[in-house]
Amino acid sequence: MALADPSTDARLLVERLAREGRGAQATLAGMDSRARADALLAAAETLRADEAAILSANAADVAAGEAAGLTGAMLDRLRLDPSRLAGIADAVAAVAGLPDPVGEVISRDERPNGLVLERVRIPIGLIGIIYESRPNVTADAAALCVKVGNAVLLRGGSEAVHSNRAIHAAMVRGLASAGVPAAAVQLVPTQDRAAVGAMLAAAGLIDMIVPRGGKGLVARVQADARVPVLAHLDGLCHTYVHAAADPAMARRIALDAKLRRTGICGAMETLLVDAAFPDTPALLGDLLDAGCELRGDARAQAIDPRIAPASDEDWETEYLDTILSVAVVDGPEAAMAHIARHGSHHTDAIVTGDERVARQFLTQVDSAIVMHNASSQFADGGEFGLGAEIGIATGRLHARGPVALEGLTTYKWLVLGSGQVRG
Amino acid sequence: MALADPSTDARLLVERLAREGRGAQATLAGMDSRARADALLAAAETLRADEAAILSANAADVAAGEAAGLTGAMLDRLRLDPSRLAGIADAVAAVAGLPDPVGEVISRDERPNGLVLERVRIPIGLIGIIYESRPNVTADAAALCVKVGNAVLLRGGSEAVHSNRAIHAAMVRGLASAGVPAAAVQLVPTQDRAAVGAMLAAAGLIDMIVPRGGKGLVARVQADARVPVLAHLDGLCHTYVHAAADPAMARRIALDAKLRRTGICGAMETLLVDAAFPDTPALLGDLLDAGCELRGDARAQAIDPRIAPASDEDWETEYLDTILSVAVVDGPEAAMAHIARHGSHHTDAIVTGDERVARQFLTQVDSAIVMHNASSQFADGGEFGLGAEIGIATGRLHARGPVALEGLTTYKWLVLGSGQVRG
Repeated sequence: MALADPSTDARLLVERLAREGRGAQATLAGMDSRARADALLAAAETLRADEAAILSANAADVAAGEAAGLTGAMLDRLRLDPSRLAGIADAVAAVAGLPDPVGEVISRDERPNGLVLERVRIPIGLIGIIYESRPNVTADAAALCVKVGNAVLLRGGSEAVHSNRAIHAAMVRGLASAGVPAAAVQLVPTQDRAAVGAMLAAAGLIDMIVPRGGKGLVARVQADARVPVLAHLDGLCHTYVHAAADPAMARRIALDAKLRRTGICGAMETLLVDAAFPDTPALLGDLLDAGCELRGDARAQAIDPRIAPASDEDWETEYLDTILSVAVVDGPEAAMAHIARHGSHHTDAIVTGDERVARQFLTQVDSAIVMHNASSQFADGGEFGLGAEIGIATGRLHARGPVALEGLTTYKWLVLGSGQVRG
Repeated sequence: MALADPSTDARLLVERLAREGRGAQATLAGMDSRARADALLAAAETLRADEAAILSANAADVAAGEAAGLTGAMLDRLRLDPSRLAGIADAVAAVAGLPDPVGEVISRDERPNGLVLERVRIPIGLIGIIYESRPNVTADAAALCVKVGNAVLLRGGSEAVHSNRAIHAAMVRGLASAGVPAAAVQLVPTQDRAAVGAMLAAAGLIDMIVPRGGKGLVARVQADARVPVLAHLDGLCHTYVHAAADPAMARRIALDAKLRRTGICGAMETLLVDAAFPDTPALLGDLLDAGCELRGDARAQAIDPRIAPASDEDWETEYLDTILSVAVVDGPEAAMAHIARHGSHHTDAIVTGDERVARQFLTQVDSAIVMHNASSQFADGGEFGLGAEIGIATGRLHARGPVALEGLTTYKWLVLGSGQVRG
């Protein structure tokens, strides 16, 4: 309830920041696309120029994190070095170079009365980003927002507070040198948790919130926000190996989907194998031999003694680890029913040589991303050719799947007349 | 708070209806476009066939409304006659004939690794409609939702309860005759107000809510909903007559924008006249002569003694009546500042012969619809060539301005591979 009922101080702070951000956004939207891109290139340069200050601030965060007993994984997410910082600056420069969707005419129509109607892509306005310990989000999210003319209000985790401030200061200096008002990219100046609640409650002031972090953060944001949220809670990705799958392809895809990287939201968490697929022992054997723990239903367990029993909970667990649940299913309908019951509408895949079955699966599976004969690890904005992503969304409105620059825009209607009245 | 905390009974009822609706939606989405259109044509026929039953039910509502002392305007919105009912059936048939956006490939891209990415338009899922006394909404909203494969949960006003039930029964019978499950179009079977609160709270069960009715209803829905809402609260539409406006065109547009119909959301509510526009006395005189009450700032009042003083409140009042606020402004910047301060982001227009100034206005005014040399009364889905509209939205995400079939869809990503792994 603390989040839903922020203190007056936090509310007033966020209101002030949001109003300043919205004012700056009008200026940013008035700059042409080239000027915004140049400003991002300038910000990439100041990020490089401030290497010493940023790494020193980061060292303070890491030292504090070690003293506070953060886990190795958390410290790794927090830690910067010259190479990682160069990567952050490079990413900002890369965003500068992406095509800008703002100004695109989405549709154009001339009515019989001569009115011309255009839908034109414009920035959304002010985007709130609430994130945890990765300081690169400060630069990545700011760059994506600024590229398409949005202002951004950043609220990073307290573990990374010094790193975030140093990165923010460098970016704002670079952007300002190219005419972007400082308030276009703001970092909430307090770690008071009530500020997060105030952001979530700021309907009409903040146009959209993107949470970046673990499931706990995303769940809290989704539960409490009165502002639209772009996010996914789970990436409970299924791969269904159909009877007509090419065995070698199925084995290659299963290994990659599960084990290439286990910690990403596109990693396979449940493998559904058709009872009529002829090569299941080898398929499961590959995964077991590669060190993956398998938890199966009774039919899967019967295939290999190394397979442990799956509990009900396993079918709805995003392991993000070298663990996989496996069920043997009788045909596509059973596979799709399993996905409908247990899935998270993120990414689900079928492996089959039967185009008719593939089309049925692609049509009927209700997920943001549905794949045929590909590894679910491709669920990524970069792999989709979007250049970068602000996040992956499993909601049904506005933008779904990997959300990049276009998802950070909206549109308005222009009506171009020559004196028409409705009469 | 009653709305935000519905009774357990209401919550369970809405959960059951929503689950049934979602189940039916899967069937509806699996029908091809032609089958859904044919089902709507069948529903139009059953609406016509049930004329006697529907008009009899409506007579009961009208009699109850008269006994309850409803105003003449409310009774008029409620009342059906053979001609109005035929219009409702015709509208359902017209929706059947519109192009179906479902299945459209929004974008297609082939990656260097051979993966083909398609974004394909799909239904949203389950749409909630909360409306007041107009029984035609029952048929209109259901037709638009069904056309693109959405299920719909309808909650009409208690004044129209018998009319809504009769219209709903006729539609469901027609739809069912063509294979659409009854639960695809459901009418909440109770007038218990807690059911509205339960709909607003049904995040994850209802995908989007569209309120149709007065400002009180829309404000309550926007304040309490945890489900995304598509709506506009105010239509505080401005027309700015620039110095370089053609005087005859400006006078024609102003009369139409204000007086063609005063009760629609696209009606002009504030006229901004540039101090350098040479024909202001005639422009204002036309409106006064036509019976419009003008409330002006000091400079406007100085032009015609019939102009009353405007209070601060007038600049933010949607009159929906033969009343207009008028301010004299010094140039486009002042006009746009007035709109930014007082507007509702619905529809704003400029009249000018200066293309550069027009382009500036079209770019900088932050409204869902921005017009040049046209009457704001064109802010309407039919006039935009969309065939019909579910509503006009002033939010910034998903869909803006007149929202028709496309706004009732979303998309998913299809990834078509040939065995690709990320490796």
